[in-house]
Amino acid sequence: MALLDENRLFPTDPVVRGLARELYEGVKDLPIISPHGHTDPRWYAENDAFPDPAKLFVTPDHYVFRMLHSQGIALEDLGVPRVDGGPTEQDPRKIWSLFASNYHLFRGTPSRIWIDHALQEVFGVTERLSAGSANAIYDHIDACLKQDAFRPRALFERFNIEAISTTESAIDDLKWHKMIRDSGWSGNVVTAYRPDSVIDPEFDGFADNVAKMGDMAGEDATTWAGYLAAHRNRRAYFKQFGATSSDHGHASARTEDLPQDEAAHLFDRALRGKCSAEEADRFRGHMLTEMARMSLDDGLVLQIHPGAVRNHAAGVMARFGRDKGYDIPMRTDYVTALRPLLNAVGGEASLTIILFTLDETSYARELAPLAGVYPALRLGPPWWFHDSYEGMMRFREMATETAGFYNTVGFNDDTRAFCSIPARHDVARRVDCSFLATLVATGRLGRDEAPEVAYDLSYRLAKQAYKL
Amino acid sequence: MALLDENRLFPTDPVVRGLARELYEGVKDLPIISPHGHTDPRWYAENDAFPDPAKLFVTPDHYVFRMLHSQGIALEDLGVPRVDGGPTEQDPRKIWSLFASNYHLFRGTPSRIWIDHALQEVFGVTERLSAGSANAIYDHIDACLKQDAFRPRALFERFNIEAISTTESAIDDLKWHKMIRDSGWSGNVVTAYRPDSVIDPEFDGFADNVAKMGDMAGEDATTWAGYLAAHRNRRAYFKQFGATSSDHGHASARTEDLPQDEAAHLFDRALRGKCSAEEADRFRGHMLTEMARMSLDDGLVLQIHPGAVRNHAAGVMARFGRDKGYDIPMRTDYVTALRPLLNAVGGEASLTIILFTLDETSYARELAPLAGVYPALRLGPPWWFHDSYEGMMRFREMATETAGFYNTVGFNDDTRAFCSIPARHDVARRVDCSFLATLVATGRLGRDEAPEVAYDLSYRLAKQAYKL
Amino acid sequence: MALLDENRLFPTDPVVRGLARELYEGVKDLPIISPHGHTDPRWYAENDAFPDPAKLFVTPDHYVFRMLHSQGIALEDLGVPRVDGGPTEQDPRKIWSLFASNYHLFRGTPSRIWIDHALQEVFGVTERLSAGSANAIYDHIDACLKQDAFRPRALFERFNIEAISTTESAIDDLKWHKMIRDSGWSGNVVTAYRPDSVIDPEFDGFADNVAKMGDMAGEDATTWAGYLAAHRNRRAYFKQFGATSSDHGHASARTEDLPQDEAAHLFDRALRGKCSAEEADRFRGHMLTEMARMSLDDGLVLQIHPGAVRNHAAGVMARFGRDKGYDIPMRTDYVTALRPLLNAVGGEASLTIILFTLDETSYARELAPLAGVYPALRLGPPWWFHDSYEGMMRFREMATETAGFYNTVGFNDDTRAFCSIPARHDVARRVDCSFLATLVATGRLGRDEAPEVAYDLSYRLAKQAYKL
Repeated sequence: MALLDENRLFPTDPVVRGLARELYEGVKDLPIISPHGHTDPRWYAENDAFPDPAKLFVTPDHYVFRMLHSQGIALEDLGVPRVDGGPTEQDPRKIWSLFASNYHLFRGTPSRIWIDHALQEVFGVTERLSAGSANAIYDHIDACLKQDAFRPRALFERFNIEAISTTESAIDDLKWHKMIRDSGWSGNVVTAYRPDSVIDPEFDGFADNVAKMGDMAGEDATTWAGYLAAHRNRRAYFKQFGATSSDHGHASARTEDLPQDEAAHLFDRALRGKCSAEEADRFRGHMLTEMARMSLDDGLVLQIHPGAVRNHAAGVMARFGRDKGYDIPMRTDYVTALRPLLNAVGGEASLTIILFTLDETSYARELAPLAGVYPALRLGPPWWFHDSYEGMMRFREMATETAGFYNTVGFNDDTRAFCSIPARHDVARRVDCSFLATLVATGRLGRDEAPEVAYDLSYRLAKQAYKL
Repeated sequence: MALLDENRLFPTDPVVRGLARELYEGVKDLPIISPHGHTDPRWYAENDAFPDPAKLFVTPDHYVFRMLHSQGIALEDLGVPRVDGGPTEQDPRKIWSLFASNYHLFRGTPSRIWIDHALQEVFGVTERLSAGSANAIYDHIDACLKQDAFRPRALFERFNIEAISTTESAIDDLKWHKMIRDSGWSGNVVTAYRPDSVIDPEFDGFADNVAKMGDMAGEDATTWAGYLAAHRNRRAYFKQFGATSSDHGHASARTEDLPQDEAAHLFDRALRGKCSAEEADRFRGHMLTEMARMSLDDGLVLQIHPGAVRNHAAGVMARFGRDKGYDIPMRTDYVTALRPLLNAVGGEASLTIILFTLDETSYARELAPLAGVYPALRLGPPWWFHDSYEGMMRFREMATETAGFYNTVGFNDDTRAFCSIPARHDVARRVDCSFLATLVATGRLGRDEAPEVAYDLSYRLAKQAYKL
Repeated sequence: MALLDENRLFPTDPVVRGLARELYEGVKDLPIISPHGHTDPRWYAENDAFPDPAKLFVTPDHYVFRMLHSQGIALEDLGVPRVDGGPTEQDPRKIWSLFASNYHLFRGTPSRIWIDHALQEVFGVTERLSAGSANAIYDHIDACLKQDAFRPRALFERFNIEAISTTESAIDDLKWHKMIRDSGWSGNVVTAYRPDSVIDPEFDGFADNVAKMGDMAGEDATTWAGYLAAHRNRRAYFKQFGATSSDHGHASARTEDLPQDEAAHLFDRALRGKCSAEEADRFRGHMLTEMARMSLDDGLVLQIHPGAVRNHAAGVMARFGRDKGYDIPMRTDYVTALRPLLNAVGGEASLTIILFTLDETSYARELAPLAGVYPALRLGPPWWFHDSYEGMMRFREMATETAGFYNTVGFNDDTRAFCSIPARHDVARRVDCSFLATLVATGRLGRDEAPEVAYDLSYRLAKQAYKL
């Protein structure tokens, strides 16, 4: 028995399915370009074995533990660490068993597809996960993990990853990246510049973070000019470790293009902890435009990921900290919010700004119309909750008619779950081939053109947009 | 000739259609759980015959008369009663004829499916309603209604309704429910606790309503403590008549969790008619949290139905009163609005809060992410304007990937139109089976798993979530 | 080889495709009703040959040049005229070649379908446009344009246009329309009343425009009464040239129904340039209600087209002026915004108000519920960015269940691109037939009813709603 249907995610009509399969055959083995991820560079640096099945599949994956939790399972019972260091389940087999017994909760979700894919394609499991199969599958995976062929670098190569980007804070020392480079390993692992902690006046320890950035950069970051110079310096440092992009996860898509003296004044207030919420927001908005201006000089691609209310449940935040599945998307405006940035640099064809959204209503209404005219803009793929069959299909259906294919950047995963990387790219390739096959079958794209578009969406556009 | 296509609402691809049919065969005869309805308990109490076809199908059904009205037909001509008691059409045959002559207006609408279903399955009509067939069909239905087999209890049994909930005001004496219980009839008809009139400071006669509630409960409801005690007392009384849920139809999803002294102060102002619009809104929002706290004690399920601008046309409201088809959905925020309630009680696995929406943009963006993590949350089915083929399909497509199936509660109708109940559940079962068949055919769900999910969506989840 | 698939835009299932084809066969040759367009009346008046392929297909079509521009091509290189009269590309063959070399950018867009349709059906081109075919196709079209059969009137007749409306400013002298009428040509070209320049206090030269309107109307338009009288006079003048509608392109759907003295006071401030932004908005909103009241007298259909942020890029506006592809849709509220207008006149069955939107989230949530109850309201077809296969399908899927078919007005194009008119109507007819075939195949519409609905959507509803 196979966990995966070989025709999964293809159209149901036999003729269109055949077309989709043909297109998919042409792209399924292309290398993976993963320009926006959150895997841990330490994995590739140290190349230690992953510890156990629960730590690989359950405890660190917010898609997984949030679903279990939503049905009343305590996060403690899934081994999620507590802020206070209090007791949580430590037995990986018990955690795995709880997960397996509730695997039916994932029916119809992308997690189900990713996990089944990883179980079958990475570990060779052919039985569905359940209470009954839990122990045997645990043992099987556990035995695999002890083999060298399942260490991070070996999997990286087996996954056919041509390039992967991790994401590091602007004040990260990039020691793991240095270690990777020094090791002589051929895997192409690059970093990305994530400056939220030194751009957001409301970030924990903002002033200290800025001071640290100044120290690292050898600049007096307490002045506006020195602060900007420190950014330039850190960006250059990140570029030494392969960075081709910066990444910005603000709550909204607000941008500003303030006069320099006003920006300097806001920065000064921010350093002294005097910013109102509105001033902090204005400063963050302005810094996106500053980052874009630096990109004009150093070529880094600017990624904007707005739209989540972080840590929605105060109690969970207090007990377990950030990133515990309690980030919830909210309505996000782009058309007004991006205007200052776009008026400043949106006409620059040498600049690439990649927009993501958690608010699908913006695809057809705002994002495609914006990306369909501004030379600097490109649309990122469906992100986070929308990294899924239906999410991808809606994106293509809602964005393509106005933005075309060539104002999108193909697929990038956004994952911390290493084994899900091939699964996610496979899903994207299948969905895009299904979409293209449907266009061909309904006379909206030539049969001769479709393979080129499939190649572009699976490989070329991501490589080109992210300069990898 | 049949009015209904036996393959209606199934996918068009023959293979997928076959799968959907198979799944449907397994659930089509399951009993109906109808936990959220607006049928009149007096029907079951008195068991009188329905008066005539127009009063059964046209005059009380806002889906029907709003469509006719939208094309210029006066509500008076449809027999809709006037507030001032002025003349309206009294001849049911004339009303029926007007309806029948305009039946083409319902092409493509759910009303068309529900009415055709009732005509064929309840009354055995096989000719399409039209100007030509109007009289014959009228005579046929009218003759049926005179038979005992078409009285409310007989239809209830024939419809295979295992349990139905009506909805009564917190200050209703539940005399019809008492009469049903006293009658010894075996039909399971329960009530639900709808306290809008004693929770909303802007409700007509709020202070009088609260006073009445106090009298009924034997509490001094002019104090905050007495008011809360009166709610507890009335909830207990409703539970005696089978209530398993409370139901809240606020304009927005706003919730608050105020300090008790502030809530008491607001209540005091509300009683004295001193609340500003903002204060009234804050009070309503706070009361949802109080209701949820009471639910933790007494186990009632909390249903929240926000998002309609009521009585949009002032002239129609003045002439015909409430519920005349002029309630219009509006944009509704959940992520911010529900935060106080969820921070207070959202982590309680013993609590069930069921969310409904008229704003489909919230499915993928807010509701599924919220229900996919908070233990207390469940998503109600597509509601009101979205209780339809396309509405249900969009709900499953947009909510399932993030919330899964098990954070939804299956189907519940929301109808005043008795004969539409089997039709609506049949539509829901067909659509869910079609959705599941599509998942199976595209490798997103195992063929062996689908029947269980179909059973869950058609029967088990509603029964479990509503504790019926 | 053909550029067009004869089964394009039909469902992929063979049975449903067959149904769709049958329906389409019944409507494909119906005359075109084009009640809301932006073609230039001068074309029909002078009947001069179109100058060259680039001026026909590229330079004036914002759908085309915005997509090319989005990938970094300068508008100057596409011959788009500069405000300052500075140099732009003048060689049509070079512009055409740039367009042809980038034709792959249009894959998956409606422009691709419209252009292929025009190339094949109007000019007989059978080779796909590309760098390689650019010159030959240029020469072929250029030779065609020199023939009488390709002059505007000949194409008008060949396109089987029964009636077309252009759109003129309230202070246009309609000289081209007069010339058409005086020519004795039988083509039915009417105007539409577009008073934005004399209704919007923020419009360039508002006071001068109002003064000019007063002069043209022989009224003292500096008083509120005279201003309204001037509108009535101009509307009557437009009706002499066939106008059956007025057209309003406000930023939002805001309406007001102010007391006359307040309106007069606002008008006075507007004339003196004293309106705040809020007052200007209120005045615009009030004027929609005034226009509706005039419609009750003179029968003009009121079209409301809200929801675009105009001229999003200040630099492009400064260099190239308005309508350069930089109008971006924004979130638009209808339920609150339209209430004053609808409370004033929404119950009038003799009035027709046609609503358009660029915000698809309003289809199911606001527009269909409003149009499904207010006698005066009808829904316009998917507009502008949504005039496309997916856009039309979403409209039918989201609006039909609540508004039915008969509260919509069939199809109208909204184009400046003359050769795209038959293409656009062909797309609409195909999509509607596909939608209807799907309804039939899924038991939601009788096989016998579908041809009538197809006819209504393709022809009758537009003709009736726009009184053409």
